[in-house]
Amino acid sequence: MKNFTSVHDVENINALVQEALMLKKAPYAFADMGKHKTLGLIFMNPSLRTRLSTWKAAKNLGMDVAVMNIDKDGWALETEDGVMMNGDKVEHIREAAAVLGQYCDVIGLRSFPKLNDKHEDYSENILRKIINYSRVPVVSLESATRHPLQSLADLVTITEMFQEWPKRKPKVVLTWAPHIKALPQAVPNSFAEWMGKAEVDLVITHPEGYELAPEFTQGATITHNQEEALQDADFVYVKNWSSFHEYGNILTKDKNWMLTNKKLYTTSNARVMHCLPVRRDVELAAEVIDGQNSIIIQQAGNRVFAAQAVLKNILEHNF
Amino acid sequence: MKNFTSVHDVENINALVQEALMLKKAPYAFADMGKHKTLGLIFMNPSLRTRLSTWKAAKNLGMDVAVMNIDKDGWALETEDGVMMNGDKVEHIREAAAVLGQYCDVIGLRSFPKLNDKHEDYSENILRKIINYSRVPVVSLESATRHPLQSLADLVTITEMFQEWPKRKPKVVLTWAPHIKALPQAVPNSFAEWMGKAEVDLVITHPEGYELAPEFTQGATITHNQEEALQDADFVYVKNWSSFHEYGNILTKDKNWMLTNKKLYTTSNARVMHCLPVRRDVELAAEVIDGQNSIIIQQAGNRVFAAQAVLKNILEHNF
Amino acid sequence: MKNFTSVHDVENINALVQEALMLKKAPYAFADMGKHKTLGLIFMNPSLRTRLSTWKAAKNLGMDVAVMNIDKDGWALETEDGVMMNGDKVEHIREAAAVLGQYCDVIGLRSFPKLNDKHEDYSENILRKIINYSRVPVVSLESATRHPLQSLADLVTITEMFQEWPKRKPKVVLTWAPHIKALPQAVPNSFAEWMGKAEVDLVITHPEGYELAPEFTQGATITHNQEEALQDADFVYVKNWSSFHEYGNILTKDKNWMLTNKKLYTTSNARVMHCLPVRRDVELAAEVIDGQNSIIIQQAGNRVFAAQAVLKNILEHNF
Repeated sequence: MKNFTSVHDVENINALVQEALMLKKAPYAFADMGKHKTLGLIFMNPSLRTRLSTWKAAKNLGMDVAVMNIDKDGWALETEDGVMMNGDKVEHIREAAAVLGQYCDVIGLRSFPKLNDKHEDYSENILRKIINYSRVPVVSLESATRHPLQSLADLVTITEMFQEWPKRKPKVVLTWAPHIKALPQAVPNSFAEWMGKAEVDLVITHPEGYELAPEFTQGATITHNQEEALQDADFVYVKNWSSFHEYGNILTKDKNWMLTNKKLYTTSNARVMHCLPVRRDVELAAEVIDGQNSIIIQQAGNRVFAAQAVLKNILEHNF
Repeated sequence: MKNFTSVHDVENINALVQEALMLKKAPYAFADMGKHKTLGLIFMNPSLRTRLSTWKAAKNLGMDVAVMNIDKDGWALETEDGVMMNGDKVEHIREAAAVLGQYCDVIGLRSFPKLNDKHEDYSENILRKIINYSRVPVVSLESATRHPLQSLADLVTITEMFQEWPKRKPKVVLTWAPHIKALPQAVPNSFAEWMGKAEVDLVITHPEGYELAPEFTQGATITHNQEEALQDADFVYVKNWSSFHEYGNILTKDKNWMLTNKKLYTTSNARVMHCLPVRRDVELAAEVIDGQNSIIIQQAGNRVFAAQAVLKNILEHNF
Repeated sequence: MKNFTSVHDVENINALVQEALMLKKAPYAFADMGKHKTLGLIFMNPSLRTRLSTWKAAKNLGMDVAVMNIDKDGWALETEDGVMMNGDKVEHIREAAAVLGQYCDVIGLRSFPKLNDKHEDYSENILRKIINYSRVPVVSLESATRHPLQSLADLVTITEMFQEWPKRKPKVVLTWAPHIKALPQAVPNSFAEWMGKAEVDLVITHPEGYELAPEFTQGATITHNQEEALQDADFVYVKNWSSFHEYGNILTKDKNWMLTNKKLYTTSNARVMHCLPVRRDVELAAEVIDGQNSIIIQQAGNRVFAAQAVLKNILEHNF
């Protein structure tokens, strides 16, 4: 693939998952593949997990990695076209992207939605412009509407933990969770989209008004009844998001939606997943996080091998 | 050379330009030269292009690179001597520089002018002290009065693009451009100084009151008539700067000084250069930036090889 | 050793000092030992010297190094257990540490005391939790109560400079110095603790009320008479700290406690040490810093080899 911005960029999802699992066993098997290749990681929003795991993935392949925190290490960027730049933005994204393309062989970009204007966020303006003007392969490190590296790591983790394929498919439940802030839809969008292409039965449960955009949830069972959704689940993915329809709003903070051990008993001894960071006893009960069924840390660890599989694929097909 | 702070540190400018062009063709030909050598990049002001291009240049030579953002990663430095340090500055530049000299084999320093006090800025106090107290080779990443890595990249770009040497010299025009903020004179000072030593005919054009310090512009033709200056130009270098004589002031924001396609027609199909970042339709018309004659991105790309030629020279002569 | 948080983690102090001195002569003798091992450096407070020297130590051993500035590059962490996380902290230290343990083979942590609550600071809550939840070896880069990498570098420097062992032991004086701010006790605690285990005669001198916690000063001579303490000293270690008993308070800023050349004459031509940063003519007279007896810069340089000896030991015993 050239760019990695969504599941649609991936030719063979299963092969990519297997590649990640192989790299987990032998992380340094391709330690010279990225020699003299530079990965530039651009963060328009702060990051701990994504920064470190993607950096490590690149290092495992022998790449050099440069991290840039835009607005902090560099400049405020103008992202709109046709603007007379007499305000506080000192550089246009066209020039910034083109220059980054001169210095980097691959670019990783994190850019969050503002959650004010649905159309603006879902246009993925910044990601598209970085791709257009840099002219080098671009990996999304979470964009306004998707977080594909997270979703790949999620699928890698499910694949690693579920032993009953092909006898039966796992029941995977994505459940909305309460939160005190309005969060993006990127992680649930992306998770739904990836699960839709994987050999799993996906059930999405959330309060009324929290429906995701239909393009992401095709093929999933959607219900407002969490209790019903959790029944016999093999995996429960816990995540808050703000409303898509009443864009960026918090419609409820209902604590009854928080996953507890009691609720977990109704599942098929389900493994619990969360992309982190997690607010204890707000999004997810501490007892669940610290319990036997949590695979959250393993899931975070798999971020390295998901990113490494993606970078390896890009190195193989573009250089 | 020991330090790289201006064109005066360079023994043979042409050899350095040719070295950079050679490195552009074979960036990894000396990939072990800097092994076990550490380049410390100290930024007293934010940087994107300089940080990334210098980092990449050092990596191409096998060096390790440590980036430090002073005031952010570290401490506020006292730069004056004989001061009782009972204020907000927690470390003196003497100790900071000496310690950096213990950890780094080569130091790169960026320190901007404050544009309040001409004498203070033009004394290059900080750059001189880092050189004196670190005792290791120092590369200017733009100082109060000069930006020699930029100027070397500029000359590399002109050399790369001009095919008619030695039959004739190119006409190179440095034209002042409008801006909304007061900018340093470092880039035009340095550009004038380097062009003065190169095989080019340099014309500098700016509004009245924007004369640069004469030590930098020796040998150049200086005119307030932009139209006349642009005629038959082979290269047009667009740059804003604040007044040297009425130090640090903006004397005009006259939009008529902005380079447009219409003005470009009077040149000899001139290539347009800018050191970036550029404010579209303020400093330079967007139509020119996006047009066929712009070599701005190529110029930015050459920053890597300019820095690499300088670091290679320093590694060869000091270790 | 597994972790390096105090002198008590070190089996053989003398062997570690000799290792550091050996590495100073041959820094790259083990340049492949840390290949494919990642050191994560976590700074909850800014750092220049520690960051750069530890980074370089790791690079000398072939490790990869990731630097994270918590609160800036990442998230605000909740460090207390059993808290419902509905405030400004977005991630718990349990998850953050566990995830870092997935990405890093060794973790370095800097976390300062708040100087409000003695019990909280001296419990070393953050350091202990990072150790518990990361499950990988942890190196203290200065914690609430100790700075063992500094103390090891101090002992390396004294060993390097003192030629009369085993004929006689050096007289080492730790003297309190005035300062305008309330500083931690970590450096003097740690210095006293290390000197107590070394072949030196330690004298500690400070104004009344500045007694350190007794667990750190066992075996040392303690006096409020600086003049008497300095007599015939071979080494004078200058350092400010805030009161332990009236916790975190400044009891005096008496300028008479500042070390000057005049005071130095009463010593046995003592070498002067300071961990830096130092406020000139507040903590220490500029004439002393710039004088022949100062070994402050050499001491800072030895930070690299102290850290390298520690990392080498950890790599040898844990992988």
